[in-house]
Amino acid sequence: LSGALPVFVHPAYDPSWDLAYGMTPASVAEALAQHPETRAVLMVSPTYHGVCGEVGQIAALAHQHGIPLIVDEAHGAHFNFHSELPASALASGADLVVQSTHKLLAALTQSSMLHLQGSRVDAVRIAQLLQMLQSSSPSSLLLASLDAARHQMATQGQTLMERTLQLTHQARAQIQQTGLPILERPENPFEGFADLDPTRIVVDLSTFGLNGFTADVALTESGVTAELPTLRQLAFIVSLGTTPQDIETLVRELTHLVRGCKASAVQSVAKSLSLSPGTPPEIPSLSPREAFFAPHISVAIEQSVGLISAETACPYPPGIPLILPGEQITQAAISQLQRIKAQGGPIVGCADPDLKEILVVRSP
Amino acid sequence: LSGALPVFVHPAYDPSWDLAYGMTPASVAEALAQHPETRAVLMVSPTYHGVCGEVGQIAALAHQHGIPLIVDEAHGAHFNFHSELPASALASGADLVVQSTHKLLAALTQSSMLHLQGSRVDAVRIAQLLQMLQSSSPSSLLLASLDAARHQMATQGQTLMERTLQLTHQARAQIQQTGLPILERPENPFEGFADLDPTRIVVDLSTFGLNGFTADVALTESGVTAELPTLRQLAFIVSLGTTPQDIETLVRELTHLVRGCKASAVQSVAKSLSLSPGTPPEIPSLSPREAFFAPHISVAIEQSVGLISAETACPYPPGIPLILPGEQITQAAISQLQRIKAQGGPIVGCADPDLKEILVVRSP
Repeated sequence: LSGALPVFVHPAYDPSWDLAYGMTPASVAEALAQHPETRAVLMVSPTYHGVCGEVGQIAALAHQHGIPLIVDEAHGAHFNFHSELPASALASGADLVVQSTHKLLAALTQSSMLHLQGSRVDAVRIAQLLQMLQSSSPSSLLLASLDAARHQMATQGQTLMERTLQLTHQARAQIQQTGLPILERPENPFEGFADLDPTRIVVDLSTFGLNGFTADVALTESGVTAELPTLRQLAFIVSLGTTPQDIETLVRELTHLVRGCKASAVQSVAKSLSLSPGTPPEIPSLSPREAFFAPHISVAIEQSVGLISAETACPYPPGIPLILPGEQITQAAISQLQRIKAQGGPIVGCADPDLKEILVVRSP
Repeated sequence: LSGALPVFVHPAYDPSWDLAYGMTPASVAEALAQHPETRAVLMVSPTYHGVCGEVGQIAALAHQHGIPLIVDEAHGAHFNFHSELPASALASGADLVVQSTHKLLAALTQSSMLHLQGSRVDAVRIAQLLQMLQSSSPSSLLLASLDAARHQMATQGQTLMERTLQLTHQARAQIQQTGLPILERPENPFEGFADLDPTRIVVDLSTFGLNGFTADVALTESGVTAELPTLRQLAFIVSLGTTPQDIETLVRELTHLVRGCKASAVQSVAKSLSLSPGTPPEIPSLSPREAFFAPHISVAIEQSVGLISAETACPYPPGIPLILPGEQITQAAISQLQRIKAQGGPIVGCADPDLKEILVVRSP
């Protein structure tokens, strides 16, 4: 919407889990040095899998450059309410933080909060921009639910999160006995993995030769809803709404799932991390906005390699696009999208949901 | 958001009511001839006061130019369900129609519908654009309420609107006896006023020397909520939720309001219309988008005449901006805003809600 040109920074990548964690402070510092015209840093923390990056260090880097740090803390709305949880982005010095109050706290779906602190971001400007994007007839139900969620956490947050954490610890201990590897906070945190939200339980099914998407279907039929199925993992949320019975069902069904499956060597978090596979995306020649509005044509996906995409291709969940408008389409991105699609993962954003064709910018 | 440069077309203006009606087909044809590069026509019909323009004729003009007609039919979601109501924009040939289902039908607030017909607008493109603007976590409550409203009108729409129209006719007859002028469909419709939604009751208080904003406060205390107070008028909605008791209260309180006030000469809809007062706004040198993102400064409102606004100044309701980003600020616009503000009407969009200052584009 803004017309900004993105500079992508590589996340730390853990090959043993096939998971991307946070951007490392070193790679952010390098990007800022290479692109002194940068106007803001945007990071996701925690990730969908509960992994928190070095928000404080990255905030300091951004502030040294005189620019704000924006944190997508969609999955961290509960952090502020218990000392055992990771530090919140606001407490770590972020300037602008968006939280999905409906995901981790008790607000109704579609209710979220945008937090602002300090003076690096102009609050009046934010209000004007929100006026352009928000309904002029806001729902009192959604607004009241945000206020109720705020009140609940202000008055009972510590107690509720204490109970949630107890259930989490119980679940983790019991799941461990099934032999399923669980993502844990490393004993010595490394760059890109500063902390872990313990209430996010991520299990690796691949050691048992299982597929996350098909396992998710089976679990759903048994009354267990994973927050995020991927090819190799399932991520579960233990929240203030979780009951002891929920944990019992989760453990029973996971035990049932792996029964009869033979585990291969159990994996653990890598001690050192590599960068993501594949080369980092080039800085696009067109901004996402320019490419989206540029004249475009639809071409067969096999013939699109090397062309400039005019649209987004995004596995959802987790909602992290593999192709953005303005980006040169790579064989690696297409292969990964086709692999996810073949295994049952939905792809959103494209004109052709079957991914047989893709919109590309027409060469002049 | 799109970066488009607007070409404004004058509405028909009725000095006897001080009301703007629709754009006339003649003025649309003239604008299209002067600006052949136009990509779409956007019109509001009905207006907040229930006045419908010549949607069919304007659709035909747009289609002759090979471009779509978009209609803001926020206040016309009920039109399709009774023959006594004006023709709906879709039935009149519009390509894209937005309706506030929550305003006139029974959906929850914040629920609306975007209708598309024909092939002039690419449905896939619309879906991609909506993905950028809408929540990725839509509320089931809001969605279900849209479906419930749709079901209600599909199965009981005719009956409900028949009852609503009966209440409307009763209300109009009884209000007439108070001496308050009521906006009526002209016997011979003229350009810009093709039809009137009878369920929208607009009374002119100025003949009794009353002010709409202060009258609205008094009525609200008596349990009557006007949909739209303006300096001279009050507009009321009779909807499928209105009861005979509501009409009784409305008539009683309006009677009470004018008791003791002496009416001056009663006005009626003008037989011929002039264009709006003031010169039409020039085509801005900057698009609203360019002006909003341009370097800007805040200046005292008195010193802003002739400068290019970097923001919107909009009396709300009705939500029709008097100043848009990119527009040259006129003394007439400032005077009108200050007049509305002094009489109690809220102004939104500006960084300074007190309107002492306004953001203008910094001259290069």
